[in-house]
Amino acid sequence: MSQQHGTLGVAVIGTGRMGADHVRRISDVISGARVAAVVDIDADRVKRVADAVEGCTPYTEPAAAMADPDVDAVLIASPGAAHEDALLAAFARDLPVLCEKPLTPDPASALRVLEAEQRLGHRRVQVGFMRRYDADYLKLKSLLDQGAYGRPLMLHNKHRNAGTPPGFTNAMMIHDSAVHEIDVTRWLLDEEITAVRVLRPTPLGSAPDGLSDPQLILFETAAGQLVDTELFVNCGFGYQVSCEAVCEGGTARIGDDHGVFVNAAGKWGGSITPGFVERFEEAYDRQVQRWVNTTRRGAVEGPSCWDGYAAAAVCAAGVRAQATGERVEVELGERPALYR
Amino acid sequence: MSQQHGTLGVAVIGTGRMGADHVRRISDVISGARVAAVVDIDADRVKRVADAVEGCTPYTEPAAAMADPDVDAVLIASPGAAHEDALLAAFARDLPVLCEKPLTPDPASALRVLEAEQRLGHRRVQVGFMRRYDADYLKLKSLLDQGAYGRPLMLHNKHRNAGTPPGFTNAMMIHDSAVHEIDVTRWLLDEEITAVRVLRPTPLGSAPDGLSDPQLILFETAAGQLVDTELFVNCGFGYQVSCEAVCEGGTARIGDDHGVFVNAAGKWGGSITPGFVERFEEAYDRQVQRWVNTTRRGAVEGPSCWDGYAAAAVCAAGVRAQATGERVEVELGERPALYR
Amino acid sequence: MSQQHGTLGVAVIGTGRMGADHVRRISDVISGARVAAVVDIDADRVKRVADAVEGCTPYTEPAAAMADPDVDAVLIASPGAAHEDALLAAFARDLPVLCEKPLTPDPASALRVLEAEQRLGHRRVQVGFMRRYDADYLKLKSLLDQGAYGRPLMLHNKHRNAGTPPGFTNAMMIHDSAVHEIDVTRWLLDEEITAVRVLRPTPLGSAPDGLSDPQLILFETAAGQLVDTELFVNCGFGYQVSCEAVCEGGTARIGDDHGVFVNAAGKWGGSITPGFVERFEEAYDRQVQRWVNTTRRGAVEGPSCWDGYAAAAVCAAGVRAQATGERVEVELGERPALYR
Amino acid sequence: MSQQHGTLGVAVIGTGRMGADHVRRISDVISGARVAAVVDIDADRVKRVADAVEGCTPYTEPAAAMADPDVDAVLIASPGAAHEDALLAAFARDLPVLCEKPLTPDPASALRVLEAEQRLGHRRVQVGFMRRYDADYLKLKSLLDQGAYGRPLMLHNKHRNAGTPPGFTNAMMIHDSAVHEIDVTRWLLDEEITAVRVLRPTPLGSAPDGLSDPQLILFETAAGQLVDTELFVNCGFGYQVSCEAVCEGGTARIGDDHGVFVNAAGKWGGSITPGFVERFEEAYDRQVQRWVNTTRRGAVEGPSCWDGYAAAAVCAAGVRAQATGERVEVELGERPALYR
Repeated sequence: MSQQHGTLGVAVIGTGRMGADHVRRISDVISGARVAAVVDIDADRVKRVADAVEGCTPYTEPAAAMADPDVDAVLIASPGAAHEDALLAAFARDLPVLCEKPLTPDPASALRVLEAEQRLGHRRVQVGFMRRYDADYLKLKSLLDQGAYGRPLMLHNKHRNAGTPPGFTNAMMIHDSAVHEIDVTRWLLDEEITAVRVLRPTPLGSAPDGLSDPQLILFETAAGQLVDTELFVNCGFGYQVSCEAVCEGGTARIGDDHGVFVNAAGKWGGSITPGFVERFEEAYDRQVQRWVNTTRRGAVEGPSCWDGYAAAAVCAAGVRAQATGERVEVELGERPALYR
Repeated sequence: MSQQHGTLGVAVIGTGRMGADHVRRISDVISGARVAAVVDIDADRVKRVADAVEGCTPYTEPAAAMADPDVDAVLIASPGAAHEDALLAAFARDLPVLCEKPLTPDPASALRVLEAEQRLGHRRVQVGFMRRYDADYLKLKSLLDQGAYGRPLMLHNKHRNAGTPPGFTNAMMIHDSAVHEIDVTRWLLDEEITAVRVLRPTPLGSAPDGLSDPQLILFETAAGQLVDTELFVNCGFGYQVSCEAVCEGGTARIGDDHGVFVNAAGKWGGSITPGFVERFEEAYDRQVQRWVNTTRRGAVEGPSCWDGYAAAAVCAAGVRAQATGERVEVELGERPALYR
Repeated sequence: MSQQHGTLGVAVIGTGRMGADHVRRISDVISGARVAAVVDIDADRVKRVADAVEGCTPYTEPAAAMADPDVDAVLIASPGAAHEDALLAAFARDLPVLCEKPLTPDPASALRVLEAEQRLGHRRVQVGFMRRYDADYLKLKSLLDQGAYGRPLMLHNKHRNAGTPPGFTNAMMIHDSAVHEIDVTRWLLDEEITAVRVLRPTPLGSAPDGLSDPQLILFETAAGQLVDTELFVNCGFGYQVSCEAVCEGGTARIGDDHGVFVNAAGKWGGSITPGFVERFEEAYDRQVQRWVNTTRRGAVEGPSCWDGYAAAAVCAAGVRAQATGERVEVELGERPALYR
Repeated sequence: MSQQHGTLGVAVIGTGRMGADHVRRISDVISGARVAAVVDIDADRVKRVADAVEGCTPYTEPAAAMADPDVDAVLIASPGAAHEDALLAAFARDLPVLCEKPLTPDPASALRVLEAEQRLGHRRVQVGFMRRYDADYLKLKSLLDQGAYGRPLMLHNKHRNAGTPPGFTNAMMIHDSAVHEIDVTRWLLDEEITAVRVLRPTPLGSAPDGLSDPQLILFETAAGQLVDTELFVNCGFGYQVSCEAVCEGGTARIGDDHGVFVNAAGKWGGSITPGFVERFEEAYDRQVQRWVNTTRRGAVEGPSCWDGYAAAAVCAAGVRAQATGERVEVELGERPALYR
């Protein structure tokens, strides 16, 4: 390894919003890692990014960056459609990978990645479901795992965004928004999702053309648990994510706003987080720090390619369920031994 | 009228738990009314109840009590199956009625009552949906009516009981528990419920034999709004009723516990109301006081026979939906002019 | 007695804001009482008030009203300076009295009333400290009396008003505002207040001329407990009263706002009660109902003349403490046997 | 500099609880720094600590560690009595210092440090008042600095510990507990504290011998603001720190518990943080990261020697005030130009 005092050299693939944020994170926040290479098909942009980081080389091809002797690990933050190629390139060099969600955009390509990793014979990929690193979700997970309130029977989720960017579609409500609740459900309950319903009330008058907003997504798990999620992506008032687990002996909820409590102008309360960056910034930091720590000691933890594949399968069922309003079963292969 | 200083003489039909509580309420809490007669088929019990109240006569037949010259109005608190006869007897004397829910146990009998009241030519009945008199629900209703946060798109309800009495059935989860959310939905949104789904996760291990607990009830309204209700009647931890209205410009929620906030033994928080009596006692008081006040001035307000009939129709659809897991449409006649 | 079905005939002394509100309360809200007479030095006003109530006679002299054979009990709601005469007149006829706070404006006159009631040989007066009838304070009192969290060591109070009427003075901050915390302290802790400090920070820029607002009032009790109260009577944002009891094994707090919880326009939270009427309306109702109930059965309960006298003594010390910033001891006589 | 990719080599002075925690933090959490040397008078212990860190040299003398060419900066975490010597040794080599609170144990020694730093002609020291780096306090500070609710008039603080270690004294309640509220007050209000009162109610029955617990500490600021702090260091139920700023146009409060909200066993609420480590761990991380970042770019920020000296002066007044119960004025010199 080229590590100085064991510093991990990371190649960041993609220098858009997420990629640039990861470059900043690894450079300024994370202990034990540095950005050794950046990759983007936009040669000018990638050079500008690389110039601002000491000892960082720009590339326009993922495989070229991965061949750089200073590169010990790969963080994929390019658009989802480019993930499969980047993952296969990393597998070719047996490099550890942190892959932003989605693993790939659809179940078929996710399955190919899953099979490729199995051929390696060991896990190399951590998928970027960052909510698993959020302090509140971690506390909830810990309570459920301890069985503090008995077996969970239902989850109630709320996922609200102030607004959506232009071009946001119903399918994106599943792939970009509900995908987090899909992973959270599978992780918190430690069960696969077996069926999906999507109910669409009369939408918001001001919803972008063609967008059914809000929607109510209903999951069934293999253990017969029921999970409802309010998706409301143009709620206007801020970013709110909450989750209540209804267990046999009690309920536990996260996501109530807190921080500063104000009395002013006839009102009590506080401010709502404007966006996911503010809400989950520390989860992103913790995710990458944990990835760096486990990678430095040669281990792999966190959401796996199986988790990425299962999410893709549920998303596919969700998009079909959106169209029909009916219950749609999730088509999921057998879980390979590597991921048990 | 036999009113002294305008005091309303009330005949209370039924002296079980609810009836006895209304006798106490009218005697000790309510201004402007007194219990002039009590009725129960159990002659011993009704005599004991009457003896404890000054100027109160016991009867074993509703019609006989209604013929008592001291009786100005009728409060029906007998079992639901006896309501139709008592209502028709009151109509025969054109007496004002406060009828505990349900109006009658099924849509067919409710329709007969509805038609009988229409033949009278004016409203005489207020149905005992007491949540409409709860301070929190009234505030929420007021916010929705003002359009404070725009048009409501969804409601999220939770209805949790510590436990159920012996013999509680799935049908009673609809008729006795969900019926309150049925009325609340119709009242808050001012829309009819047009379809029902009931989803049943794997139940609580300790659920009484044959009871699916918890359940998720889903209503659609004529305006396309979506309403979900968690019914959990053996949650073990107390009685909790909450409602969040998701509107175009914000959400408003009632039912968070409050009162005394405690720090002790490693925990912050407070006590959960043990039962519906503690939670809705003031709503019952306010309901009866409002009924007395409007009756004394010759008016009729509050939930009508139409509301009682519509609730029965939705309950009937709900019980069918429980059996199938599918969407069931509500069969509801045309709303008569008297109830518009 | 002239009671019809035991209805208590009440003479209401004073028909200003508080008096008029009590006339309405007894007529429309309270069970078992009616307004038989009203008294005001303003003959026109008192006639108008009486005309609106069935069977109610107007008077301009308290003693004349008390001689009315329809009058069974007296509610004194005239200005504090007129209380002593009205109380002595009621004692002359041995009539039960609910006397709005203050009992009288100063310790000397309160002591005269105390002595006059002792000469009667039995309690006749309930003083109108209505917080003792507030649902939240009652729950807190109950927890303290049960010793749920052990012996109380400190109280933290907050008493905030949106604003003050013209002419509000520093002395009124003690006599009209802090007087409630004086009574609450003595009642919750069941101890006399032995010393007072008043600390005055640099006031609000917009405080009325000469008014030190906010102030911090500190009480010591005979048991060595410490009680701090923030008085802020021009806080601008609404009416807020809270109390936290710090006990040996935990703390218990009341007065957090609640009701409807809203997400809208970038904020979570709710509305602050605008004034004391909204906050304590039910406490007033409960206070008068309890007075009617105990009076009808010939008993006397609630805050006594001793409580009124002790409050006057602490107020007098508080006003002296305001001037000096120093610790001022409360001068309080021996508690007579009648009030133990 | 010996920095590799600009990595800051830190000498950690003291390897007790705080020192060991800082070694772990710099090694595993903080970006851009490493532990180059550790110092402890216990030669065995310091060797063990150094052996566990790559490239770290053990020393028994602070001055020797500071002479190590790999050392770029100093973190002092030894007992307070040893701070003055370590600070002067760092000044001799013009090294940047993060000095755990207290700067020194008393105003006289703090003044000597202050003068020594002035002779250097530039600031070198950041004092470890870590609450200034807590996310909640930072939000409150930001609101006050923006003037969101106008000028602050009062602060209400609560500082509760589950329990105290053996040998905890009244003086330590000031020096170890209240010192945080002293710094928070000066920082949030940007004013010096000019006078202190300490009121001591009858203590907790189970308080350690001689300890007055709880206590109420009252500060006045140069601008006439009033600050009260409940110190309760054997409250039994957990660790709680809260602060409410009462401003001309509203109040803002931090420190309400949050995280996971639970309904179970008749109670709603959540768990109380057991200790200051859990509550302020992220503040410690942020403090050290900020110190590393500013130091790497050659700057000095954060609490200064003046802040350390002023805290020592207020503590000295506080200890005198504890003994007398009277108002004690704080003796504070003129603020030197270097600290304006």
